[in-house]
Amino acid sequence: MILLKNHNFIHRSEAKTDIEDRGYTFGDGVYEVIRIYNGAYFMLEYHLNRLQYSLNEVGINYDVESEDLETLLSELLNKNTIEDGAIYLQITRGIAPRKHPYPTNSQPELYAYPIPVSSPKKEQEQGVHLTLVEDLRWLRCDIKSLNLLYNVMVKQKAVDSGAYEALLYRSKDHITEGSSSNFFGIKNGKVLTHPANNYILNGITRIAVQKICKSQGIPFVEKVLSVDELAELDEAFIASTTAEVVPVTKIDDVVIGDGTVGEIVKKLQAGFLQLI
Amino acid sequence: MILLKNHNFIHRSEAKTDIEDRGYTFGDGVYEVIRIYNGAYFMLEYHLNRLQYSLNEVGINYDVESEDLETLLSELLNKNTIEDGAIYLQITRGIAPRKHPYPTNSQPELYAYPIPVSSPKKEQEQGVHLTLVEDLRWLRCDIKSLNLLYNVMVKQKAVDSGAYEALLYRSKDHITEGSSSNFFGIKNGKVLTHPANNYILNGITRIAVQKICKSQGIPFVEKVLSVDELAELDEAFIASTTAEVVPVTKIDDVVIGDGTVGEIVKKLQAGFLQLI
Repeated sequence: MILLKNHNFIHRSEAKTDIEDRGYTFGDGVYEVIRIYNGAYFMLEYHLNRLQYSLNEVGINYDVESEDLETLLSELLNKNTIEDGAIYLQITRGIAPRKHPYPTNSQPELYAYPIPVSSPKKEQEQGVHLTLVEDLRWLRCDIKSLNLLYNVMVKQKAVDSGAYEALLYRSKDHITEGSSSNFFGIKNGKVLTHPANNYILNGITRIAVQKICKSQGIPFVEKVLSVDELAELDEAFIASTTAEVVPVTKIDDVVIGDGTVGEIVKKLQAGFLQLI
Repeated sequence: MILLKNHNFIHRSEAKTDIEDRGYTFGDGVYEVIRIYNGAYFMLEYHLNRLQYSLNEVGINYDVESEDLETLLSELLNKNTIEDGAIYLQITRGIAPRKHPYPTNSQPELYAYPIPVSSPKKEQEQGVHLTLVEDLRWLRCDIKSLNLLYNVMVKQKAVDSGAYEALLYRSKDHITEGSSSNFFGIKNGKVLTHPANNYILNGITRIAVQKICKSQGIPFVEKVLSVDELAELDEAFIASTTAEVVPVTKIDDVVIGDGTVGEIVKKLQAGFLQLI
């Protein structure tokens, strides 16, 4: 495997970082997971735009355009000849003695490398179960940062309870999203999902769903759902770069609709396949 | 410099971690900063207890006692012969391909090494200014985790505004703590500070202050302060492992008391010197 480290291509065995990389001591960095279909990046521009947003919000001095990151990622893809998979990319504030304020002379540290990802076909066909967990994350979930401890804790809770994913809520009136996915309800033919604000990460697949809804004439409504409203939904699904569009048939003890994969979710899945 | 890596002592130049260390990809780990005075650890048992608490809360399978960490830290101190300074110690969930759930076969990765720390004498004598910043951190601040991105962002805000530290508030009625310190107000001879719950990190120096108050007959009261109450305080201070006890004379435009270092803070500082 060949990895991109800043502007250089290295081998996996060389891919180590210093223990004073601020990504290691503070989680001080941001990341993207970019899907590859048929040997090409999917919605790359959206990922690079979001990456630049995250960088700007946390004040990491890295300019995606002037660093020519798109070209470097193309080269990375060519060197690894991936047909179907993903690239994981992270940028930290760099290496510096451990002090909270931003170091004045550190250089951002970038790593990008292939990770194995394949579409979860069985889950996409049969649907999955979710479990509700309180959302205790920070209030800047719009930044795709490396501070993912609570996300991994709740993902593990989901695994332990036999669910595919955790569905997070701030309060009983305020469902936000999954631990690594956005959540969508469907009611009376409308797709309902949390507004893209500081409480959620605006997923690239969420943007894809929005596009598909538009092209298929399905209303896409940004609305905060409550826990009680889950029982009233006709259909539900989650979406993420790695899961794509996965139907949700049950949330804890609440069966969604008639407990089978609904028609609108199937339309959205078909629409997604046309995008790639 | 000699570092402790798991059970081994290594040189600084060897201290690199794999890019798939979960500390690097998820901030999936916990840490401590332990002060050294006169060649000995200060309140080491408290640090090790808190470390075990953090490990348990995030489900990292590392037992401080059975790993004999205390002995390893003693050896680390001897090998580096530090009279006055600190040890930084972190434990991550280990190295594994990037997937959210806890890996079943990874080993925790521990690094401990000396960092330069000296008492901020000038600030302790003259007092410092703070600046109020909204507290947007996660709601498990009782865990001393590596997810410190918001802490470094607000520390930088403080630096940018010429303040020594940021004072965080959840709402105008709810001041929590500093970005890397606990906050204390003094009113009518009583020391007032946020209860030790999920909104703050229960600092070891906070525990030391509690001890000093007890031995000097100064009431130590756990109470949530509001922003408006700051103007009514007689004195104020912050406390942390690296800062010890530092008087606060101004918070944004609000002068605390008469703007000089007060008598009770001086007593607490004297009491702290007797502990070390």
